[in-house]
Amino acid sequence: MTSIEFWYEFASPYSALSALRIAREAEAAGVAVQWCPFLLGPIFRSQGWQGSPIMAVPEKGAHMWRDLERHGNALGVPMNCPNPFPQNGLVASRVALVAIDEGWCAEFTRAVYRAEFTELKTIAERPVIAHIIAGLGRDPAAVLSRAESEDNKQRLRAQTEQAKQRGIFGAPSFVAPDGELFWGNDRLAEALHWACHGSLEGLLRPV
Amino acid sequence: MTSIEFWYEFASPYSALSALRIAREAEAAGVAVQWCPFLLGPIFRSQGWQGSPIMAVPEKGAHMWRDLERHGNALGVPMNCPNPFPQNGLVASRVALVAIDEGWCAEFTRAVYRAEFTELKTIAERPVIAHIIAGLGRDPAAVLSRAESEDNKQRLRAQTEQAKQRGIFGAPSFVAPDGELFWGNDRLAEALHWACHGSLEGLLRPV
Repeated sequence: MTSIEFWYEFASPYSALSALRIAREAEAAGVAVQWCPFLLGPIFRSQGWQGSPIMAVPEKGAHMWRDLERHGNALGVPMNCPNPFPQNGLVASRVALVAIDEGWCAEFTRAVYRAEFTELKTIAERPVIAHIIAGLGRDPAAVLSRAESEDNKQRLRAQTEQAKQRGIFGAPSFVAPDGELFWGNDRLAEALHWACHGSLEGLLRPV
Repeated sequence: MTSIEFWYEFASPYSALSALRIAREAEAAGVAVQWCPFLLGPIFRSQGWQGSPIMAVPEKGAHMWRDLERHGNALGVPMNCPNPFPQNGLVASRVALVAIDEGWCAEFTRAVYRAEFTELKTIAERPVIAHIIAGLGRDPAAVLSRAESEDNKQRLRAQTEQAKQRGIFGAPSFVAPDGELFWGNDRLAEALHWACHGSLEGLLRPV
């Protein structure tokens, strides 16, 4: 079975849309998904940005939230702008790495995004993340202890380094087995098709 | 029959992908298309940008050309980076307005984009545009004379003002009859669906 890497940042609303859809879409395409949480902030800062480049043009930022609202409404998951935006996803990212090892990363990731963008919870706060962990039937104290170990902190830093090595500059990003990089929630179907066929032929009709 | 406005800039490669596809996609959706050429440069400059914002992040610019290459290959229209990029679309835009009145704007627009991105012609040059006009069975001298009249020059300026009034900040953009704005080649299907239904329900499946 072929696979794709799904690189996502907890602050990113378009990553949320992909996280909500990817399990179903990948299953339909016969593609396995490797969940890859990472921090985009260090990559933005190394490019000289203090925040998301999209917010540098106010009209573009306004359109982005309307676009997210349209998508969220159609998906049945209302998408709102948290305050502050972007949220700090450090704790959530560390927990997600632990959850990968224990097999509950997909559920955890979707729950964090719903809390962040639909319920407008502050995901930077440990009690918010602890509540989500408990809701998945896990022991929050034990999970947070593993998540905040030195080894796991280092693992998250390595994760962001791996993202850089793949040429990733935004989130969500998808990487096919041949290294082909796709950026953006609107490229999910293309990444899945590429993982199976190595081109977009058959997905886009010739003109 | 419902309709959408298709706002495009001749320098924009993603506008090219939409121009190549929109007639077919809109016909299948039962939507009429109003072709709206405009100049994006004055809008970028009023936002403080000297060129396309996407080129401000080198990794993003590189990904854009790879993304365009993937799409162009699948559509059967190779997409290359012209030199210089972006090209100056002033003459082409003026001619496109004349072509709207005379009913050959769609063919002209597609021919210009193929010349620019597949054949790497310099579309800023009047002989290049004249050659395209002749290829469509029109008289280049007569068309260029109408295109470069004071009235028509003013009409193009008014076109860009209208784009601003709709909140347009990039190209391609699509505007539904209720004023809903969609930005980007990857939003064409959504804009067509919205023009018919006023939402994205039925296009995106609830999660």
